[in-house]
Amino acid sequence: MAGNSFGEQFRITTFGESHGEAVGVIVDGVTPGIEIDEAYIQVQMDRRKPGQSSVTTPRKEYDTVSILSGIYEGQTTGTPLFIILFNKDMKSGDYSEIQHAFRPGHADFTYLQKYGIRDHRGSGRASGRETAGRVAAGAVARKLLEHRGVSVTAYTTEIGGIRCETFQEDQIEQNAVRACDPQAAVRMIARIEELADAGDSCGGIVECRIRGVMPGIGEPVFDKLDADLAKAMLSIGAVKGIEFGTGFAASAMLGSQHNDGMDAAGFTSNHAGGIIGGISTGGDIVLRVAVKPTSSISLPQQTVNTSGQEQTIRTEGRHDPCICPRIVPVVEAMACLVLEDHFKRQAAMKA
Amino acid sequence: MAGNSFGEQFRITTFGESHGEAVGVIVDGVTPGIEIDEAYIQVQMDRRKPGQSSVTTPRKEYDTVSILSGIYEGQTTGTPLFIILFNKDMKSGDYSEIQHAFRPGHADFTYLQKYGIRDHRGSGRASGRETAGRVAAGAVARKLLEHRGVSVTAYTTEIGGIRCETFQEDQIEQNAVRACDPQAAVRMIARIEELADAGDSCGGIVECRIRGVMPGIGEPVFDKLDADLAKAMLSIGAVKGIEFGTGFAASAMLGSQHNDGMDAAGFTSNHAGGIIGGISTGGDIVLRVAVKPTSSISLPQQTVNTSGQEQTIRTEGRHDPCICPRIVPVVEAMACLVLEDHFKRQAAMKA
Amino acid sequence: MAGNSFGEQFRITTFGESHGEAVGVIVDGVTPGIEIDEAYIQVQMDRRKPGQSSVTTPRKEYDTVSILSGIYEGQTTGTPLFIILFNKDMKSGDYSEIQHAFRPGHADFTYLQKYGIRDHRGSGRASGRETAGRVAAGAVARKLLEHRGVSVTAYTTEIGGIRCETFQEDQIEQNAVRACDPQAAVRMIARIEELADAGDSCGGIVECRIRGVMPGIGEPVFDKLDADLAKAMLSIGAVKGIEFGTGFAASAMLGSQHNDGMDAAGFTSNHAGGIIGGISTGGDIVLRVAVKPTSSISLPQQTVNTSGQEQTIRTEGRHDPCICPRIVPVVEAMACLVLEDHFKRQAAMKA
Amino acid sequence: MAGNSFGEQFRITTFGESHGEAVGVIVDGVTPGIEIDEAYIQVQMDRRKPGQSSVTTPRKEYDTVSILSGIYEGQTTGTPLFIILFNKDMKSGDYSEIQHAFRPGHADFTYLQKYGIRDHRGSGRASGRETAGRVAAGAVARKLLEHRGVSVTAYTTEIGGIRCETFQEDQIEQNAVRACDPQAAVRMIARIEELADAGDSCGGIVECRIRGVMPGIGEPVFDKLDADLAKAMLSIGAVKGIEFGTGFAASAMLGSQHNDGMDAAGFTSNHAGGIIGGISTGGDIVLRVAVKPTSSISLPQQTVNTSGQEQTIRTEGRHDPCICPRIVPVVEAMACLVLEDHFKRQAAMKA
Repeated sequence: MAGNSFGEQFRITTFGESHGEAVGVIVDGVTPGIEIDEAYIQVQMDRRKPGQSSVTTPRKEYDTVSILSGIYEGQTTGTPLFIILFNKDMKSGDYSEIQHAFRPGHADFTYLQKYGIRDHRGSGRASGRETAGRVAAGAVARKLLEHRGVSVTAYTTEIGGIRCETFQEDQIEQNAVRACDPQAAVRMIARIEELADAGDSCGGIVECRIRGVMPGIGEPVFDKLDADLAKAMLSIGAVKGIEFGTGFAASAMLGSQHNDGMDAAGFTSNHAGGIIGGISTGGDIVLRVAVKPTSSISLPQQTVNTSGQEQTIRTEGRHDPCICPRIVPVVEAMACLVLEDHFKRQAAMKA
Repeated sequence: MAGNSFGEQFRITTFGESHGEAVGVIVDGVTPGIEIDEAYIQVQMDRRKPGQSSVTTPRKEYDTVSILSGIYEGQTTGTPLFIILFNKDMKSGDYSEIQHAFRPGHADFTYLQKYGIRDHRGSGRASGRETAGRVAAGAVARKLLEHRGVSVTAYTTEIGGIRCETFQEDQIEQNAVRACDPQAAVRMIARIEELADAGDSCGGIVECRIRGVMPGIGEPVFDKLDADLAKAMLSIGAVKGIEFGTGFAASAMLGSQHNDGMDAAGFTSNHAGGIIGGISTGGDIVLRVAVKPTSSISLPQQTVNTSGQEQTIRTEGRHDPCICPRIVPVVEAMACLVLEDHFKRQAAMKA
Repeated sequence: MAGNSFGEQFRITTFGESHGEAVGVIVDGVTPGIEIDEAYIQVQMDRRKPGQSSVTTPRKEYDTVSILSGIYEGQTTGTPLFIILFNKDMKSGDYSEIQHAFRPGHADFTYLQKYGIRDHRGSGRASGRETAGRVAAGAVARKLLEHRGVSVTAYTTEIGGIRCETFQEDQIEQNAVRACDPQAAVRMIARIEELADAGDSCGGIVECRIRGVMPGIGEPVFDKLDADLAKAMLSIGAVKGIEFGTGFAASAMLGSQHNDGMDAAGFTSNHAGGIIGGISTGGDIVLRVAVKPTSSISLPQQTVNTSGQEQTIRTEGRHDPCICPRIVPVVEAMACLVLEDHFKRQAAMKA
Repeated sequence: MAGNSFGEQFRITTFGESHGEAVGVIVDGVTPGIEIDEAYIQVQMDRRKPGQSSVTTPRKEYDTVSILSGIYEGQTTGTPLFIILFNKDMKSGDYSEIQHAFRPGHADFTYLQKYGIRDHRGSGRASGRETAGRVAAGAVARKLLEHRGVSVTAYTTEIGGIRCETFQEDQIEQNAVRACDPQAAVRMIARIEELADAGDSCGGIVECRIRGVMPGIGEPVFDKLDADLAKAMLSIGAVKGIEFGTGFAASAMLGSQHNDGMDAAGFTSNHAGGIIGGISTGGDIVLRVAVKPTSSISLPQQTVNTSGQEQTIRTEGRHDPCICPRIVPVVEAMACLVLEDHFKRQAAMKA
């Protein structure tokens, strides 16, 4: 395919440009007879939307979801769910300056190289706005996973070099950066505001913990559960890396240290991060993604225009100085999509 | 699918268990009229095979490839290439002890949980032996990529905590660990031998550099080039993480530091690792994978048997104390498969 | 997938129920830089819409298309086209009577068996209304095929046992049944009106002729061009059979009669219908589909309700006594979708 | 994909040329824990093999199957089954004469147009020999379907214009043409032998009846059960058409005649052929395929060579004057593959 679909038995297809008329998603393969409504989905949309705090862009996208198909009398029917969000408050004027220049860190150059044409307004299809459809679809998957006893929780563990020292799950949604350590959160927010004032941006690390997945989920050899989760996460624009369990640290460990032993109660450790041989072990699935600093900064940067002439550019407009807090619900959504898909694939294999 | 196929327009499907009669691969979507023979493929097989040095298992797999279809008078015909390797020198006796126990770090437990049955001999389908088919198919992709002016080179940058300080490409195939720094290689080998004597194992980091990819390759939004490369690499058993360009280090950088500027000559840096917005920039594509320590160690480990009773286990048999040198050709093969597939998808989109 | 997507490199995904809020389609894999607008698509929608003549239902669906993404300044950008049609003039009251009974010939029973729940309003997802999205997407494919010099034309050749004796292509759109023989059309219309008055319906045969396809299009062995066309046509609700070239008549011919010979000018006959070995010959691709009589009739019929109790039912509401004239544009749309997809796949194979 | 795979959750990929070293198939998505062996598969292979009677080619292909993976101690493990048949008794000399000429009715011309190169020996990949892998995989699907209580039976109903008047299921495998009417079989065989002596060939019609499929199998809207069966059957080289239930005859029926009513006992007729709205009704699934006369005849035919020069050609070698009896097991195999795939997809949807 051309790349706008994800999943196999639980499959989503997204559409829409940042400053087009709407963005949205078709969700195919939804189990019938499940109660779900727009309010349930809206909860996740609101976690992703801009303007939530001092550290997110004041831009208002009005992420109000409408379900136009697949629901009858409050229940899913097994036919495709279509979810749409109409765009509003688009100030294309903000972007006119960059119509003919390539913003450093953005996909302006690569899109033009690939397609020979691009909708530059608000980054068009390459905008983070595209993830709105993912989060809406992810909420549908989350609802199905709830029926399976699976929960998915992501949170910031590091921003601008400041790391969380504690894991206080109940505090995650209580601070603007969705950090698992409220003390670290305070320093992270201060750092972000300082950088925002300087016209700069920073990155961070987001961790995701998936609980309640029975052993046996995942399809060897290519569609390993961690392989599909890796693809899902790297398909998020700002993500530059992923690791599972001990991850990169495993490269410096000994087999005698890294191997997860077992006793009558189950695994005695979880260095593997809940997946061995591409199949869930029954333990928590733990992954971390590296989030790059937001590309849009107002500091002057060296670039060229579409004619190849050098120029400096300042990315005006309203942007997130750190995207971590808004990536958290996107990471959760992608994890939900992968898990629900693999649960259905396991059912097909066993049938 | 059930997970044994990879790729879309250039697609491989593998089969085979470690101690079954054979392993192999069907390669579909091969450009017709390309000259390729078994000798060309064998070169890559020999880089993957065991018994290459003191730091690899002495086990002989006789990785001799036979092409049984898709070639006529030395050229590809556009029909599926079928490549098979018959298994030999299988000492299933070595594995009888672990028929009823779960080896720590291995997929014994998860396979049994998933399928309710498993071929324990030599780890069955979960064995690294499965990658033989990938390397054979990857060689076919490599040949097609040569015609596109693309080269793919992987090498070890760290083993057991010992890091390469220099990048000497011509030295990679000259040392047993395929390290890019011959001095570091000497210390890595000593470390591996020391651990092997102790019945332990270690991990490392393998980097892959892809040169010559024109700008515009990769399919947003889900099939980003880095997303598909991430899936490809995480589908390799021992890989626990991946990063592109500055990777995890980007999480501590500022936007003003990380953004790759441009001048009349092109990009002035490559922090992105050759991919922006999921599409190739034209610069080198650079990725690194975290390789966990080999699970098979002869030190006693705590585990349970299939009846849930606790026991200690020593994984006997012949194993690699560090898998990095043999993962290098597998990483290259997977990268070749992803690239060739995306070149074909770009052609379809433009058509 | 769950079955709501079609195509591989040119791929559509449809959504929507007959009496839901909207129906529509996402078209992925559209060649960038192509000029297309809503007016071009509307022409095909108007050929499919109800209320075109005395032989089609007076129901008004207001098939007005809106393109909400994938177009920038009048040209395709290579990102997904999203096309939506909002539903209006829905008289669900018409259907309340059949909420708890299974209409003979309709998918009421099978949908309930499959999903355990159904949206009975206007047949929900099983309604012919679903084909609106196909026709809209087919128009996009048609535009791309125009650039390839390919034309697709379907027409009625038989209705209610009345057959066309002549082929007058310029007359097809000039009569209410889209027959290629205007004299036969007069008799067909009279027959349909007679049956409509009697509360009954009839079927017919629609032929499709595809011109300008170069030799070499089609992917052996499973994705043969005729195999994919057959799937495409049988995915249309009322179609019960398909044949290519001489079709079923070939079963009574001799090899010496059926084989298409060649001379310096090319093939001397086209019994194969333009496809041999699943690959286009360069000749016209000719196929015929069998259209069953419309299931909705107002004559009393024997059926059971959802409790299994026997009852008679009259399908009230506004229906087409013969669906052939409105299936013509759907057949063309599906043919366009298959062709464009295979042109792109051929480009990928050759790349 | 390039077209050599079929199915989604139960997926096969075939390889091999007629005069290459082997043909075979990888079967992915096999339910684990099922007892199956080569002898079970061989039964179906023997029904497809040449040399079974006076009306089939004396060519011996030695269709002996070997399963090289996916089985452990007599049971499937859930990993890919690999089944191979090595080619023998290849008389390429028979074909040297047609290396540079296009045989009427064969894919010689279209393959060369598509790929720019072709393996002409025994028709290469376009040979009926390719179906050996399908029949082997179909046998695996048949075994899984047995556990579901589903049976698939195909038989000849017409050859050379001679039609079966009776349906005697127990007689199908008792006559050389696999006709359901032994009296008609006698005349069919005489007709075939007469045509063979004259150096000509003939076609026929094969019907397939699938029993025991529960209601609810099939995936609207594009992957309707009949749509996928149509693709499966049209992917068989000699098939030129397909119809379900009343099929083309439905085009001349009235709605009041064609609609299948229901009473307390279920459907009172089966004009639909067991599928409504693309979903199984629970009744027998009945389809018929049109088989063209064998292309290979020894009568002189007009053609051109690869240089475009006109010439006459006689297709020497050993061929089937009528392929119907050998297509019967292929039709059954394809039906089994579609059904097993859809059963697994239904399980995924419901999960």
